[in-house]
Amino acid sequence: MAIVVQKYGGSSVESADRIRRVAERIVETKKQGNHVAVVVSAMGDTTDELLDLAQQVNPVPPAREMDMLLTSGERISNALVAMAISSMGAEARSFTGSQAGVVTTAAHGKAKIIDVTPGRVQQALDEGSIAMVAGFQGVSQDTKDVTTLGRGGSDTTAVALAAALDADVCEIYSDVDGVYTADPRIVPDAKKLDNISFEEMLEMAACGSKVLMLRCVEYARGANLPIHVRSSYTDKPGTMVSGSMEDIPVEEAVLTGVAHDRDESQVTVQGLPDSPGYAASLFRVVADADINIDMVLQNVSEVETGKTDITFTLPTDDTAKCVEALTAAKDRIGFRNVVFDDHIGKVSLVGAGMKSHPGVTATFFEALAQAGINIDLISTSEIRISVLVKDTDVDEAVRVVHKAFDLGGDEPAKVYAGTGR
Amino acid sequence: MAIVVQKYGGSSVESADRIRRVAERIVETKKQGNHVAVVVSAMGDTTDELLDLAQQVNPVPPAREMDMLLTSGERISNALVAMAISSMGAEARSFTGSQAGVVTTAAHGKAKIIDVTPGRVQQALDEGSIAMVAGFQGVSQDTKDVTTLGRGGSDTTAVALAAALDADVCEIYSDVDGVYTADPRIVPDAKKLDNISFEEMLEMAACGSKVLMLRCVEYARGANLPIHVRSSYTDKPGTMVSGSMEDIPVEEAVLTGVAHDRDESQVTVQGLPDSPGYAASLFRVVADADINIDMVLQNVSEVETGKTDITFTLPTDDTAKCVEALTAAKDRIGFRNVVFDDHIGKVSLVGAGMKSHPGVTATFFEALAQAGINIDLISTSEIRISVLVKDTDVDEAVRVVHKAFDLGGDEPAKVYAGTGR
Repeated sequence: MAIVVQKYGGSSVESADRIRRVAERIVETKKQGNHVAVVVSAMGDTTDELLDLAQQVNPVPPAREMDMLLTSGERISNALVAMAISSMGAEARSFTGSQAGVVTTAAHGKAKIIDVTPGRVQQALDEGSIAMVAGFQGVSQDTKDVTTLGRGGSDTTAVALAAALDADVCEIYSDVDGVYTADPRIVPDAKKLDNISFEEMLEMAACGSKVLMLRCVEYARGANLPIHVRSSYTDKPGTMVSGSMEDIPVEEAVLTGVAHDRDESQVTVQGLPDSPGYAASLFRVVADADINIDMVLQNVSEVETGKTDITFTLPTDDTAKCVEALTAAKDRIGFRNVVFDDHIGKVSLVGAGMKSHPGVTATFFEALAQAGINIDLISTSEIRISVLVKDTDVDEAVRVVHKAFDLGGDEPAKVYAGTGR
Repeated sequence: MAIVVQKYGGSSVESADRIRRVAERIVETKKQGNHVAVVVSAMGDTTDELLDLAQQVNPVPPAREMDMLLTSGERISNALVAMAISSMGAEARSFTGSQAGVVTTAAHGKAKIIDVTPGRVQQALDEGSIAMVAGFQGVSQDTKDVTTLGRGGSDTTAVALAAALDADVCEIYSDVDGVYTADPRIVPDAKKLDNISFEEMLEMAACGSKVLMLRCVEYARGANLPIHVRSSYTDKPGTMVSGSMEDIPVEEAVLTGVAHDRDESQVTVQGLPDSPGYAASLFRVVADADINIDMVLQNVSEVETGKTDITFTLPTDDTAKCVEALTAAKDRIGFRNVVFDDHIGKVSLVGAGMKSHPGVTATFFEALAQAGINIDLISTSEIRISVLVKDTDVDEAVRVVHKAFDLGGDEPAKVYAGTGR
């Protein structure tokens, strides 16, 4: 008997009516002879409403209490879905993250899953019940306090649970059909992918694709667990994320898609002595501020001064913190100035086929040059080329690259609510 | 250092503003040098809203899931109060009933507390923190499922927690000043009692007083834990429920108050053979239907037939179930008919002084007779006289008894929102 784990996002359960529709789909999956475990996010606006209430009683709410508060949302939605399922003749039991054995680090608001020991969930499945598991939460191994997992936490819960149950597949439902060759809102003829390897999906997620969180894909890859990304509005199959790109025969390896990311900014440290150790001190300061750096470029030294500039990119949300930290270290490290630019965006071409097809890089840059798009930074991996461009050029860059590699389909892309969540 | 446990009801925390006011009172209590643990009900309408949502997805929601759903309410309010406290410079940590060690029977919706092992709460208090504990809930000893405690559950949680912590007092806050000599809405000169013994409060609660639930008072008496019933709208002391009536000197023993109960109905089984065993069979049928009987009256036998009627009272909510059960057993037991009357009310005079003051019974009945009020059933205990009257006579009966024993005060009684919850 196959084990299927499904995950439904907040918009899929935003009302009593949507809850009943989701329950119908779950019961249908069970009737097909599967063991079914389901992870559900909080109903529509619940999390925002709770955040608002919290703000009213304390503008700077303590993190432990914020987690106690927010986890009510998933508790409510999972209990309601379980009730709806019961009204349709099937059995269902709901569990909190803690009851489902989701053990995490102690970092409130951004806890990481350490382990999942789903004893009670497995027992429910063995007894013929559908198991509902509250997403986005767990319990701290050290403090036994309730924790939440940060953005995309419900997807992570679903994948981790599926891996722990040794499930056959994890279905992630949202209001988009699947993974596209580019954002359909920018590229009208973007095509839905039937399949994508773990490594290519990792690159797409790292480069801005919002369909699945990076951590979630990493977890699935580590467990060799297929993820089926599909829409809760249709029965048609979505995109299956599975398999290693190493297993793709060379002649079948293709270019998969174009991702973009507007949430990056660029920071430049000017007048840094061009000697060993200085760049390292710089990045240590940034790392100590708990900031992840993406792309890096060291410019050519000014011959007379022996000084140079270093440019790097990071999430826009971390920029202020980064500039503060670097400015505070300016005299100690000995550079002239730090400036930043948040009007940039990253555009990336991803595909296993890149490895075996010479000329991809040339075609990529020619397409952008022909469109008159300036490139600031370049970064590559075995299966990805990324460039930094002006934010106003992002959409056009995505379109010309997509077209240059003939990634488009014959049908126009379908867009539902459009958030991919 | 004294240990104080406080309980605030839903109307005390119905908005962000009320939550902050409650937080101020809690912090003030802490600043006076006490260890403080607090039990809070769900915010205002939350429980009703959740019930409504549940109804929309399943008109007959499974009890286990209903408990998972409803307990979100207390989780939310306790986390918010903890946040508000944090903004006022004190430390606070919230706990679910399960985390606070409230262990119960498995009966969803009406679980009974088996034990409270408040290790984590005690630890929080020892570390100088205020402990918020979600009321109305616990965890089943057998199934490890989350349970709710039934009506008045938050009061019971507070008292049980206070007993387990060996607290000095349990303060129950609501929108009434304390326990009155009669319902102030019926008797304008009803007086607030400064003190009342456990036994007298038990009688008042059993006879219809809604200020405290019976189970709650029983628990406090068993633990010899004083309960301070007071209003969250004022700093003035309320009513202290403490001590045994055995410890009241005879000359100080008084009559305490008049309680009334409109939630009772009367059932009469007609034509029951007046021989040993028949009444027992009758009450066994009622007991098997899980119904509690209050007052009982067996009428004089009809000499010719050797048959008699038995009348008893029970909660109005159980009447339909009772009539059904008895009707089904009519032929087996062998009585003629079963009828019921829900237009009745019970009026009770309570006071330790009854034991030592002859003439109380006479004065009681004379007062009712003078007011032309018919009495259906009579029931007494060492410190209580109860009569059943027409529901339309209840208010007048309360007034004349209250006046006959001169229980009124000089100031008019204060009534706030008026529900006592």
